Amino acid sequence: MTAMTAMTTTPLASSLLLRAQRFSLELSRACQAIAIVRQQSTQHNTASQPSAACSHSSPSKLSQKRNMSSSPRLRSLNIDNINPHVKEAKYAVRGELAIKSEEYRAQLKKAASQDPPTPPDSPLPFDKVISANIGNPQQLGQKPITFFRQVLSLLEYPPLLDNEEALRTSFGYKQDVIDRAKWLLEEVNSVGAYSQSQGVPTIRQSVAHYIERRDGYASDPAHIYLSAGASSGVNTLLNVISASPKTGVLVPIPQYPLYTATLAVLNARVVPYYLDESRGWTTDLGTIKEAYQKAKAEGIDVRAIVVINPGNPTGASLSADDVASVIKFAAEEKLVIMADEVYQTNIFLGTFTSFKKGLRDLQNSDSTGKYDNVELASLNSISKGMVGECGHRGGYFELVGFDAEVQAQIYKFISIMLCPPVVGQCLVEMMVNPPKEGDPSYELYNKEYNGIKEGLRERAYALYEAFKKMEGVELGEPQGSMYLFPTIHLPTKAIEAAEKADRKPDEFYCLRLLDRTGVCLVPGTGFGQKPGTLHFRTTFLAPGTEWVGRIVDFHREFMAEYA
Amino acid sequence: MTAMTAMTTTPLASSLLLRAQRFSLELSRACQAIAIVRQQSTQHNTASQPSAACSHSSPSKLSQKRNMSSSPRLRSLNIDNINPHVKEAKYAVRGELAIKSEEYRAQLKKAASQDPPTPPDSPLPFDKVISANIGNPQQLGQKPITFFRQVLSLLEYPPLLDNEEALRTSFGYKQDVIDRAKWLLEEVNSVGAYSQSQGVPTIRQSVAHYIERRDGYASDPAHIYLSAGASSGVNTLLNVISASPKTGVLVPIPQYPLYTATLAVLNARVVPYYLDESRGWTTDLGTIKEAYQKAKAEGIDVRAIVVINPGNPTGASLSADDVASVIKFAAEEKLVIMADEVYQTNIFLGTFTSFKKGLRDLQNSDSTGKYDNVELASLNSISKGMVGECGHRGGYFELVGFDAEVQAQIYKFISIMLCPPVVGQCLVEMMVNPPKEGDPSYELYNKEYNGIKEGLRERAYALYEAFKKMEGVELGEPQGSMYLFPTIHLPTKAIEAAEKADRKPDEFYCLRLLDRTGVCLVPGTGFGQKPGTLHFRTTFLAPGTEWVGRIVDFHREFMAEYA
Repeated sequence: MTAMTAMTTTPLASSLLLRAQRFSLELSRACQAIAIVRQQSTQHNTASQPSAACSHSSPSKLSQKRNMSSSPRLRSLNIDNINPHVKEAKYAVRGELAIKSEEYRAQLKKAASQDPPTPPDSPLPFDKVISANIGNPQQLGQKPITFFRQVLSLLEYPPLLDNEEALRTSFGYKQDVIDRAKWLLEEVNSVGAYSQSQGVPTIRQSVAHYIERRDGYASDPAHIYLSAGASSGVNTLLNVISASPKTGVLVPIPQYPLYTATLAVLNARVVPYYLDESRGWTTDLGTIKEAYQKAKAEGIDVRAIVVINPGNPTGASLSADDVASVIKFAAEEKLVIMADEVYQTNIFLGTFTSFKKGLRDLQNSDSTGKYDNVELASLNSISKGMVGECGHRGGYFELVGFDAEVQAQIYKFISIMLCPPVVGQCLVEMMVNPPKEGDPSYELYNKEYNGIKEGLRERAYALYEAFKKMEGVELGEPQGSMYLFPTIHLPTKAIEAAEKADRKPDEFYCLRLLDRTGVCLVPGTGFGQKPGTLHFRTTFLAPGTEWVGRIVDFHREFMAEYA
Repeated sequence: MTAMTAMTTTPLASSLLLRAQRFSLELSRACQAIAIVRQQSTQHNTASQPSAACSHSSPSKLSQKRNMSSSPRLRSLNIDNINPHVKEAKYAVRGELAIKSEEYRAQLKKAASQDPPTPPDSPLPFDKVISANIGNPQQLGQKPITFFRQVLSLLEYPPLLDNEEALRTSFGYKQDVIDRAKWLLEEVNSVGAYSQSQGVPTIRQSVAHYIERRDGYASDPAHIYLSAGASSGVNTLLNVISASPKTGVLVPIPQYPLYTATLAVLNARVVPYYLDESRGWTTDLGTIKEAYQKAKAEGIDVRAIVVINPGNPTGASLSADDVASVIKFAAEEKLVIMADEVYQTNIFLGTFTSFKKGLRDLQNSDSTGKYDNVELASLNSISKGMVGECGHRGGYFELVGFDAEVQAQIYKFISIMLCPPVVGQCLVEMMVNPPKEGDPSYELYNKEYNGIKEGLRERAYALYEAFKKMEGVELGEPQGSMYLFPTIHLPTKAIEAAEKADRKPDEFYCLRLLDRTGVCLVPGTGFGQKPGTLHFRTTFLAPGTEWVGRIVDFHREFMAEYA
C-alpha cells in the first residue's frame, strides 16, 4: 500500500524524483568507475578503495542513503543492490575490447552487404577484424576433423544410416564412421535425451582408457565427470571447495580469469602466486610457499592450488620435476590440486607430464603413504588441442583421492543442471578414442590432426620471430597452448596518456591497436601481472601473417608517437 | 613441517588414528542423516535441527572437535568442511530413486547381453525400467522432429551440402532444410566455434520475432539471452538477485526443485507460497501476500517471485486473470517476476497466457505508469514442448524492464562460462521459426508435431482415468506440461512402516513401486507439499499403457498389504 500511495504523487513531483535519482545514480557510477580502476592496480580480490574525490560520497554510502531514503525504488534490482560478488567478478577475455571488436565486425559486415557496398558512416581504417583475443580455432577458419563431424551428422539424423551405400558413395563416409555412430547411438539412445548427470557411462569408460594409455596407470570411470567444457568443471569444483569467505585457493598469476572470476562470485579468496617469467613462466615453489604462508598468517583457510599446464595465458609447459614439486607441496599442506590440463596436446617443446602420472609416480616411489590421500582434479576439454570444438561445450574432469561423501555432493551439485550437452559428450569420446592405425578413417584423421598441429607451431614461431624484433617487446620461445604472452615496455608518455584516458597502459595499447588495425588482443591486466610489468596475450590461431604485419606496423607508430 | 612430522608416526598409530577418524565420520553421518530426514518434514531452507539422540554430538559439534583436534586431517575436503550451502541443496529428481532405477536398468541390460541370456544374481520382478521420473521425451522413445535433425546433420558436417542432389534423392532432404542449414552456417560460421556469450545475434532476432507473434507486442533481441537449457538461465538470474543471506525469493510449493536447490547453494532464502490444489493448483494471491508479509516481518528482503506456468510438477495452466494478479502484486511490491514458461506449448485445457503479454496488456490499460518498471524474466527451453531436445541443452530468457547496469552484470556473469552450446542455439532458432505452411518440410513437420502433442494428451488422459479409479488417489483433469501430480492417501500402517524405514511415506511408496515394478516416479517430498499431504509426480511420456497397469496393480497390493 505504501508503494501504491507513493506512485500516485503528482506527475511533476515524480519527474523531479526520477531526475534526482538518475543524478545520484550517475554520480555513484562515476565514483565507482574510479574506484574500480584504482582497485585494479592491486589485481587481487581486495576490498575496493574509493578514490579521494569520492571519499565523502562513496558508492556504498550513496547506496545506503538511497535505500534509507523515503523515495520509492523504481525496480527490484539496481547496480547497488544485486549480488555484490557477481559485481566484483572481472572477466576481461569477453569484456569491453571483445564487445568493441564485435561491433566493428558487424559494422564491416553491414557495409559489405549493401549493394553496391557503401562505405560505413565513419569508415574504419581496416577491412577485417582479427579476433586474436579468444582461443576459438573454428571461428578463425580451423577446419573441424572430418571423422568427428561425420559421426556427429549421423548422431543428429540417424535415418542417414538407413542408406549406408549412399553415405559411402556420395559422401565418402568410411565404415568406421558408420560403426562408431551406431555404437554411440546405442549408448546414448538419442543425443536429444538427457544422459546421466555424470555423463554417459561408456563414454566415461573411454576417457578412463585414454588416461590409462597416456599415463600408464589405472583410471576409474566412476571418478570421471563429463562437463560442459572445462569451465563448468572448474565452476563445480570451486563451488564445492568454497566453504566460507575465509576459504582460499592458490591461483597462478598471470592466469585464465575464469578462476579469479568464479572465486569472486563465490566470495572466496584468491591467493595469488606469481609464475616465474625469467624461467619461461614456470611455477616456483619458493614463491608458492611464500604466498601460502602469507595467506595462512592472514587467517585464510587455503584449500586448493590451481595449476594451468600448459599455461594460459603464458604458454609455459611444466617439467616433470615442477609437477612433482607442486604435488609434494600439496601433499604436505593437504591441498586439492586443480590441474587445468586443457592444452595437454598443445605442446611444442618437451613433453606433457600429467599431474595424475606425477602423483602415481610419487605414490609408487614412496613407502610411507604420505601421498596416498592427495586430492587431484584434472580437467580436460574438447575446445582446445587439435579438436577445437569450443561451440559444442564438452569436457571432463577426473577425481583422484577424493572422499566418497564429497564426491556424492559433487554429483548432487552437477545433477541440478541435469547433464552436459550430449553431442559434446560424444565429441569427448571421439577425442579420447580417435581412429587408430589401420582404421579406414585413420589416414585422413592423422593428416588433419598433424596439419592443425603443424599450422599452430608455424604461426607460433612466425609471431615469436616478429615480436622478438619489436622495440621494447620481450618473450621466450613458444612452448605450448595457443598463446604468446610477451612483455611490453611502453614509453613514459604512453603511460601518461593512458592515465589521462583512465586506462591501464596495456589496456590503452590494446584499445589503440584494435581501433587502428582491427586486431583484438587481451591486455595483461585481464590475467594479472606483476606490478610495474605490462603484457598482452595473443592467440596464434588466425591464418596468414598479414595481421602480424599490422601489429608490427602499429607498434612502430605507437612507439614513435609516444617516444 | 607439522604435517610431515605427523605423517611419520608409526604405522600402528596411523592405523588406529585412521580407524578413530572413520568411526567419528560414520557417527557424524548417521546423526546428519537423521537430522536431514527430520528437517525434510519442514520442507524449507530452515536451519537443521539435530535429533535429540545426537544433540550432544551433532555434526557441527563433531566437525568442530575434529578441526580443533591435534590429529592431522587426511584430506583437504571432507563432508564437514566443504561448502555447507552445496550440502544443504536438495535435488530429488536425480536423487536416490533415479540412481537406483539406473542400476536396475544396467542390471537388466547386463543379463540380456549374456549369450544365452542368463538371469541376474538376484532376479528382478520386472524386465524393463520405466523412467517416469524425468521429463526426458527422447529417452522414452519420442522421435525427434525430422526438419530439426536434418538441418543439424548439415550443420555438423557441412560438406554434405556439396552434393545437394544426393541429399534430396538418397535421403529425402527438402530444399528448406538445405536453405536453413546454409543460412545458419553463415550466421554461426561453425557450430564448433564459440558464439557471443549472449547467443548468436540473428538467433536472438528469431526469438524476438517468435515472441512478437505469440504476444502481439514488440520484443528486442538485445534483451534476449540464449542459455544452456532454462536451468542455466535460472541459475544466472538467481546468482544476480541473491545479494545476501537475507535475500528472499517467493517460490511456489510444490515446485521444480531447481529453484530451492539453487537458492540453497546461493545461501538465499526460499519464501514458499502454496499453490491451491483445490482449484487445480492455481496461484492464490491471498496465500502469496501472506507468505510475502510473513517473510518481510522476519526481516527477509524479498526481491523476486517465481511462477511456473504451465506448472511443474502440478501441470496447472494459469488463466489470464491469475497471470495479471501476480503482475499487479509484483508491481506493488517491486518484485522481479521469474516466469518459467518452458511448457508454454504443452497445454491441453484453455490457452497459454505469457507473462510478457499479461504485463504489456496491463501497461496498455493503465495511464499512471505504475507497471512501467516491472521487471520480468521469462524463460523457455528446447527440452520441453513438442521439441523435447533435452540432451542438446538449449533455451533462452527474455528480460523486460531490467536496469541497464544490471543487464551488464548479467552479461558479464554469463560470459565467464563463454557461451551456450551452439547446436542448442540452432535448435532454439528452429523451435521458434519452424517450417511454415507452403514450405516443403511443412507437411511432415506439422504431422510430427501434432502426433507428439496428441500422444501426450492421450497418455495424460489414460493415466488420469487409471489414477481416478485407484483407492485413495485424487487428482484433477490434465491441463498442461508433462506431468500428473496426484494426491495419495496412504493407510496408517504404511505411514508407520515408512517411519520405521526412516523414509517419508511418499518416498517409501515410490521406492516400493520401483523395487516391485521398475516404474520410477518422484515422491511429492521432492517438490514440497503441504504438511500432512502426500503426492507423487509422473510424466506421461512413456509409450504404451502396460506400465500404467503395473502402477495400478502395485497400488492395489500396497493398499491391501497395509490396510
